[in-house]
Amino acid sequence: MGEKIVIAVDCAGGDYAPHEMVKGAIEATEEYKVDVALVGRKAVLGKIARHYATTSTFEIIEASQSISCDESPAEAVRSKPDSSIVVGINLVRDGVASAFVSAGNTGAVLCAALFNLHRVKGIERPALCGIIHTNSAAPVLLVDAGANADCRPGFLVQFAQLGAFFARGILGIEVPRVGLLNNGMEEVKGNLLARESYQLLKNTSLNFIGNIEGQEILRGKADVIVTDGFTGNIVLKTLEGLGDTLHNFVEEDQATGIGHNLQGSALVSYAQLDSMARRMNYEEYGGASLLGINGNVVVAHGRSRAKAMKNAIHLAHRAAHMKTFEAIKEGQYLAR
Amino acid sequence: MGEKIVIAVDCAGGDYAPHEMVKGAIEATEEYKVDVALVGRKAVLGKIARHYATTSTFEIIEASQSISCDESPAEAVRSKPDSSIVVGINLVRDGVASAFVSAGNTGAVLCAALFNLHRVKGIERPALCGIIHTNSAAPVLLVDAGANADCRPGFLVQFAQLGAFFARGILGIEVPRVGLLNNGMEEVKGNLLARESYQLLKNTSLNFIGNIEGQEILRGKADVIVTDGFTGNIVLKTLEGLGDTLHNFVEEDQATGIGHNLQGSALVSYAQLDSMARRMNYEEYGGASLLGINGNVVVAHGRSRAKAMKNAIHLAHRAAHMKTFEAIKEGQYLAR
Repeated sequence: MGEKIVIAVDCAGGDYAPHEMVKGAIEATEEYKVDVALVGRKAVLGKIARHYATTSTFEIIEASQSISCDESPAEAVRSKPDSSIVVGINLVRDGVASAFVSAGNTGAVLCAALFNLHRVKGIERPALCGIIHTNSAAPVLLVDAGANADCRPGFLVQFAQLGAFFARGILGIEVPRVGLLNNGMEEVKGNLLARESYQLLKNTSLNFIGNIEGQEILRGKADVIVTDGFTGNIVLKTLEGLGDTLHNFVEEDQATGIGHNLQGSALVSYAQLDSMARRMNYEEYGGASLLGINGNVVVAHGRSRAKAMKNAIHLAHRAAHMKTFEAIKEGQYLAR
Repeated sequence: MGEKIVIAVDCAGGDYAPHEMVKGAIEATEEYKVDVALVGRKAVLGKIARHYATTSTFEIIEASQSISCDESPAEAVRSKPDSSIVVGINLVRDGVASAFVSAGNTGAVLCAALFNLHRVKGIERPALCGIIHTNSAAPVLLVDAGANADCRPGFLVQFAQLGAFFARGILGIEVPRVGLLNNGMEEVKGNLLARESYQLLKNTSLNFIGNIEGQEILRGKADVIVTDGFTGNIVLKTLEGLGDTLHNFVEEDQATGIGHNLQGSALVSYAQLDSMARRMNYEEYGGASLLGINGNVVVAHGRSRAKAMKNAIHLAHRAAHMKTFEAIKEGQYLAR
């Protein structure tokens, strides 16, 4: 396919597969002029795609198996070579697709990526890079957002290097500010992992700005926040839970007619509130990029509907366009 | 003082000491008919108290020293026997006060409590019990909210026992649902600490309901959520940060006049939004009780103003009234 960017989309994983996955992929082709390859059962996907009548063209790549959310990742990847996740990852490995986006079993995507795309040289553990929208203009990258529940200090340094490189590529921030998520501001604060990571981070060439406390995450003080995948996952989901709460609040209020009865000036404030709720909603950023493997893989939320998928595809497309993952593979994440 | 309940209030600790501490204490005497003892420099506190002209009577107890936020806790407690924190803790030890409330150096309060009140028999590590307001009627208790950055699985079982007992006493929940904060729902999920803690928790007589993910914290699924103090502190502060964001949003919007120009029906929705912002604001719950030491100690937020102090004093007063800490001391937290 030469220089053409094709994003492979897992249409068999996620709570709303296959319909919302297909819909999101088609919306992405229309909105972002992306080429997509739908991965799943050809007969099923073709039928759904025809339903969303479109002028876009896209490929459908057969994958007869699917991995469910509660399957054991490594086992499922080994025993289902024709699953949408394994097929999709292999499209990236073989250069047929530039990236793979999946809302399926996160562990299985990680395993398949590790097994078939392999780790980047110098990286011990690949990490998920969550994107958090903040009160300031640029979002914050949270690494690791959930791939590694138990970490060693050296892993966090690698997360910081990968995260900073990704922030340069994707967010266009020349010298990203890197913070360490911690339970206090001072250097001596933290659990053993955080205290040791602090000492390593301050001796790197990164723009390490020190500890970031929970209440500072949304304030845009750091561009990249590093933490272990256990804490990262919980923080990201806590923020998501609040986004949901706010979102429901706006929707309920509008349903009761209160929103509709507001004067013009008041609608502005509703729009603001709604915008805030949306900023905290995972649908807006769509997915988390997997950093540290030789390939462009985006893990979308299991609850993703079309909009979240569309945004996850957009994220994969931007990274593919910038050749971010090729650069990481070449070790450029280590250079400053 | 017999059966009289007196709450000792640290008037030398916290960002807004001494004024807001004195004000909060006086407001508590008026609103909750609590007796308070102000701890700090008599001359200074007397002058401030006179400023807030009141019919309440209260004692002032001299403490000539104060411990600042950036002092090393253990060292400060040892070298400043006449600090408001040490004096206040000793008032509890000596039975002069029923409880001690401080917005000062949290580590120093923990140290002074450990040194002078001692651990409850069977408890290896005292923990902070944070109170999180949720979308449902009852709040959720988060233990440990920050006292122990590094934990062993056995500690989390003790946090669960203390938290459940506290929920029975303070929230009146007969059989509190205990959840383990984790990065997934399934039993096998988590870091090493969470996985091992899960196995211990399910073999206790507690009403253990399994793992709680970040997005479920505010949904009232569990009455008590246990976690290590590192994760607990970060989650609590993340929620606080969002409370602040919402609060600012409401205030800014009202300041621009939009709020004031709304029709009656719209004001209801503003009130709802404001109520939601307040629910997430630390000022509403005021403070975190220290569980696992022989005494009633409440740690208030360093940023506490009068309102937060008043609520923290109210929390201490309720626990004193219920004799919760006497019961914990007697080992009743182990009984079901």
